[in-house]
Amino acid sequence: MTATRTAQRLSKPEEYSDLLDRFDTFLFDCDGVIWTGPTLVPGVTDVLNLLRSRGKNILFVTNNAKKSREMYKKAFDGFGIQASVDEIFGSAYASAIYLSKILKFPVDKKVYVIGEEGIEHELKSVGINFTGGTDPADRVFVPSGDYSSIKNDSSIGAVLCGFDAYVNYKKYAKAHTYITNNPGCEFILTNADPTYPAGGAFYPGSGAMSAPLRFSTKKTPTIIGKPHRHMMETILAAHDFDPERTIMIGDNLETDILFGINSNVTTLLVMTGVTNESHLSGENKSDTVPDYVVQSMGDFAVLAEQN
Amino acid sequence: MTATRTAQRLSKPEEYSDLLDRFDTFLFDCDGVIWTGPTLVPGVTDVLNLLRSRGKNILFVTNNAKKSREMYKKAFDGFGIQASVDEIFGSAYASAIYLSKILKFPVDKKVYVIGEEGIEHELKSVGINFTGGTDPADRVFVPSGDYSSIKNDSSIGAVLCGFDAYVNYKKYAKAHTYITNNPGCEFILTNADPTYPAGGAFYPGSGAMSAPLRFSTKKTPTIIGKPHRHMMETILAAHDFDPERTIMIGDNLETDILFGINSNVTTLLVMTGVTNESHLSGENKSDTVPDYVVQSMGDFAVLAEQN
Repeated sequence: MTATRTAQRLSKPEEYSDLLDRFDTFLFDCDGVIWTGPTLVPGVTDVLNLLRSRGKNILFVTNNAKKSREMYKKAFDGFGIQASVDEIFGSAYASAIYLSKILKFPVDKKVYVIGEEGIEHELKSVGINFTGGTDPADRVFVPSGDYSSIKNDSSIGAVLCGFDAYVNYKKYAKAHTYITNNPGCEFILTNADPTYPAGGAFYPGSGAMSAPLRFSTKKTPTIIGKPHRHMMETILAAHDFDPERTIMIGDNLETDILFGINSNVTTLLVMTGVTNESHLSGENKSDTVPDYVVQSMGDFAVLAEQN
Repeated sequence: MTATRTAQRLSKPEEYSDLLDRFDTFLFDCDGVIWTGPTLVPGVTDVLNLLRSRGKNILFVTNNAKKSREMYKKAFDGFGIQASVDEIFGSAYASAIYLSKILKFPVDKKVYVIGEEGIEHELKSVGINFTGGTDPADRVFVPSGDYSSIKNDSSIGAVLCGFDAYVNYKKYAKAHTYITNNPGCEFILTNADPTYPAGGAFYPGSGAMSAPLRFSTKKTPTIIGKPHRHMMETILAAHDFDPERTIMIGDNLETDILFGINSNVTTLLVMTGVTNESHLSGENKSDTVPDYVVQSMGDFAVLAEQN
């Protein structure tokens, strides 16, 4: 079925204008759409201002689990882009909401965190107890073969795993112990991105970091981030909008665009990030096809100039 | 087909005697068969001595990649069991042999090692250059987001991944960089055991440790250890024996017994390790069925008493 679908390429001001008219809510991925690494995508500030001037809802939906919403807002501030904390949905926050609102995680239980400050901030913001994370006691190497210090803790009711540059065998061994020993222990990933972009290169991402636990416990984790539906559930828990008049804009077919498709909203692919033409046509073409493609979100700035 | 196969249970002295008569070469897994953790399986020393007195070939075939053959021999010495280095086949040694004999790994290339001393010893023993491993420069945590120190090295022709208690993000990021940037870079796992037994508990094993690289690079590694055939190739490269008169003895259906089946040798399961009755019958029964089952290798000691 999808083989016959083709994305519609937009390149004319009237096409841009029609698109803006058709949607009220614009869900944006950030890296690869608003900025690429340390560089703002040209024209994007004007486009965001144009959307605001037309009364559109803007929400930023990112799989980045390293940062809390507060921390992520600082990235917007650094680029001089207007954004409020309530408009930002990161996978760390979405995971905290999933635990508190959807799972109703017991107050007498703790979450064991493989992750950094961002996850801790968001768990605190919703009143969930946790251990691990940035605790220096778990940022260590344990001597090979001596795991006597690793004991089960029956108060751990979930393991939440995101990107953690300080991941190590002690963390994996503890998480494995909790998941396999505590009946009903939840195993949750902030997101399952295979790679993480930094400095123009790619390194193992959150999904890769959690892979040892999937392999050793043989348990299937609950994945919160794009393209999974839990991300949309948390957005809809906080914002009232009409999916029919919502568009998801991203640079990644397998996360952003698939997320839009899984969430039944229209999708717009931009070519300022990880996707290139070989993903859209030819023998290696992706099965995930967006509704629309534009070269850059900045291309919409032509409408701002017309204002 | 396998559903109708049933293992033959041996419990009488004449059954043990018949089995010994039918085979010339005995391939033993160690942990769970010869010893369980720090404890020798009762009677096993007598049984090994009996086999030697009858002129049988004895080979120890272990997936343990932490130890070189020399290091592994010390475990036998500690239990007072006669064993020579040439009789020991660990997955670290087998990986070194695979690189040197099968891949004919170029002398001007290096292997990047995620692993410990055992792998380094075995690579040295076959004259293969390597980096990583126990190098203190790679036993560190790099600050989150700053991976500028991680550069590609075009002299890396293979990544070899085994058990490494000092695994960290820098090692994963380097290995990912080499595998994805160097054309033809081999991606080899000593073994793919999901768990590692220590102190009566299970922790993530070698197969789990390499999982981030499988996930981030999307490359399928070459796996050396049991149940894969490369292990048998390296044994056959060093020892001349008739597979028809060879039996593989182990405690693990998914590594030892499947290895025997994959290698077309007879298999004997012992119940002194990870397998219990629920794996052999009932609704959760394994698809992997051994030819024979005994409670313990020590049960054969009754024949030594008759000598």
